[in-house]
Amino acid sequence: TSLYGKGRCFCLRDGDDFVRRRNIEKLEVIPKSPMCQRLEIIVTLKGTAEQRCLNPQSKFVQNLINTLRKRSSK
Amino acid sequence: TSLYGKGRCFCLRDGDDFVRRRNIEKLEVIPKSPMCQRLEIIVTLKGTAEQRCLNPQSKFVQNLINTLRKRSSK
Repeated sequence: TSLYGKGRCFCLRDGDDFVRRRNIEKLEVIPKSPMCQRLEIIVTLKGTAEQRCLNPQSKFVQNLINTLRKRSSK
Repeated sequence: TSLYGKGRCFCLRDGDDFVRRRNIEKLEVIPKSPMCQRLEIIVTLKGTAEQRCLNPQSKFVQNLINTLRKRSSK
């Protein structure tokens, strides 16, 4: 999914439903704003520092955020 | 909480337990890595683009991530 959509959103389409967790260097959650009417989730991958959009509706992505959050409270 | 701790973590101490949700432009979750042995949560604030560390153990912060995630699946 390429970034920098027509409007002011980062992501053109919905984004990927899956990414390997150990490849994630950083995960960004960008709430809806006047600039972009939908919440966006962008991961930066280790090594390449490539950025990729994730599909906020995908169960995997929602679990991913949950596991990251839970691991923080151990 | 200032950023750029002694090691390679962004955050010096635990971070804030609260931030006004409408002030959040972006929220970053950075999993533990060889560079930094703890998960870090950093928000970028609207307007000033100031970055602030949040305490991953704080209930508020955990709920914040949850509400952002839930709002994405509406």
